[in-house]
Amino acid sequence: MAEIKLFEKDPYAPIRYVYEVDQVLYRGRSPYQEFAVVTNPFFGRMLILDGVVQFTERDEFYYHEMLAHPALHAMQAPRTVIVIGGGDGGVVREVLKHPTIEKVYLVDIDEEVTHVAREYFPTVSSGLSDPRVVERPMDGAIFLKEFEGKADVILVDSTDIVGFAKSLFTEDFFRQARRVLEAHGVFVTLSESLHFHLPLVREVQNRLRAAFPVADLYTAPIATYPGNWWCFAVGSQGTDCRVPVRDAVTPTRYYCTDIHRSCFIPRFLYDRIMEEGRESL
Amino acid sequence: MAEIKLFEKDPYAPIRYVYEVDQVLYRGRSPYQEFAVVTNPFFGRMLILDGVVQFTERDEFYYHEMLAHPALHAMQAPRTVIVIGGGDGGVVREVLKHPTIEKVYLVDIDEEVTHVAREYFPTVSSGLSDPRVVERPMDGAIFLKEFEGKADVILVDSTDIVGFAKSLFTEDFFRQARRVLEAHGVFVTLSESLHFHLPLVREVQNRLRAAFPVADLYTAPIATYPGNWWCFAVGSQGTDCRVPVRDAVTPTRYYCTDIHRSCFIPRFLYDRIMEEGRESL
Repeated sequence: MAEIKLFEKDPYAPIRYVYEVDQVLYRGRSPYQEFAVVTNPFFGRMLILDGVVQFTERDEFYYHEMLAHPALHAMQAPRTVIVIGGGDGGVVREVLKHPTIEKVYLVDIDEEVTHVAREYFPTVSSGLSDPRVVERPMDGAIFLKEFEGKADVILVDSTDIVGFAKSLFTEDFFRQARRVLEAHGVFVTLSESLHFHLPLVREVQNRLRAAFPVADLYTAPIATYPGNWWCFAVGSQGTDCRVPVRDAVTPTRYYCTDIHRSCFIPRFLYDRIMEEGRESL
Repeated sequence: MAEIKLFEKDPYAPIRYVYEVDQVLYRGRSPYQEFAVVTNPFFGRMLILDGVVQFTERDEFYYHEMLAHPALHAMQAPRTVIVIGGGDGGVVREVLKHPTIEKVYLVDIDEEVTHVAREYFPTVSSGLSDPRVVERPMDGAIFLKEFEGKADVILVDSTDIVGFAKSLFTEDFFRQARRVLEAHGVFVTLSESLHFHLPLVREVQNRLRAAFPVADLYTAPIATYPGNWWCFAVGSQGTDCRVPVRDAVTPTRYYCTDIHRSCFIPRFLYDRIMEEGRESL
């Protein structure tokens, strides 16, 4: 059988991931990034941006559930949510499982992500046609700066913390997020791998601490992100995201109340992560 | 710079892992397997058996701590421990951190693993010279069948559940383990990845359930085992391994009481794993 391989291009990962490719369904380019959609015998369809796997049909639920649900379950009735990045709709799909949601702003700078997701990943983009979703294709940092309303939750679902997503990880951006959030609001952003990028995880925590009274960190196991032990960084004005305040929405495949309670980094490890200069636990 | 790569040979993983290689320190062969010791700029020294990464200097502590400590902390005073496989000494090193330990049987069929570890991985093999360690280089299944004493804990630290390690995953082997264990005893064995080998995880649980009144499952994040979300399967006659009964030993780098409490699979996910025919969560 013909050996056709995808060599993932992740310059920050010390293990290179190589995938079998059955079909190349799409190749294209937007003003921001290069697109590929391929099929793999195990993972099904895979979305690849600038050579880096963003998600696969088989395992996208881990990431999308875990970005959305801990923050949303830390409050009784989230109404307004801002998703920055996430043009594929996976996070929006999870947000809409919460019955109190009235409005979801989807702010992805690259509309082509949405087009490709609608075409090739219908189970991911399924929530995008919901009337509560307002698409604002623009830079998330500018959106927040100009936004005059309030939000209960802000979720950043960007590409890695390099390249054009860098503006979403500055202290200034975090301060804007705090300004926009309600007093009980929660901000969540991806924060790379504890195995491979511990100093970066610490740096994001430090920037969050400068902008928010409370910063925290939880993880999820994601097979297709190098390093796998994937981090989510949390900022709030006091809401303790570790404590779910209501029953888990349904249906989910990974998130549940017990996962919520166990996904946050124990204090013993958190303190080690925050030790200046430490490269691994 | 010369690009020298290790392509890991794991026929059961849908992602191929590729590592940079600086130096090849050793290549050899025993009657059981082929050995390589290489260095990598991120992971340091790596032990590779039959083409599969067994551990690296940088991250071996996750696996060795998490194989040893949950079972040992589920009882007040473990005295006798049997380690099957684990000739490198990493698990023995962790076991010896418990002050009540009187005897550790190390039963690795392949003495060459110990020789290579003593030569190239002194921080892993460091416990092997302890007078409480009794080396018994033989098949672990035969050792258990012939063993006339009792043990508090049995830990299986083998290669993957294929090839010559298969005899360590039969129902008969699990029954022998139960026979050898004290009434409060705990048996732990590796159980592959929840991302990549869910049916195998279920099969090991089913075989454990046939041999032990209690079977359970916990995980640890390990970057160098494909699928990463690594499973450990537990059998006991009633001891609830989820509950640590004393303070965590020191020093550790990952294991702590909070990790012990959070590493077990929530019932919501456990029930999904056990659904016959299910391939992913």
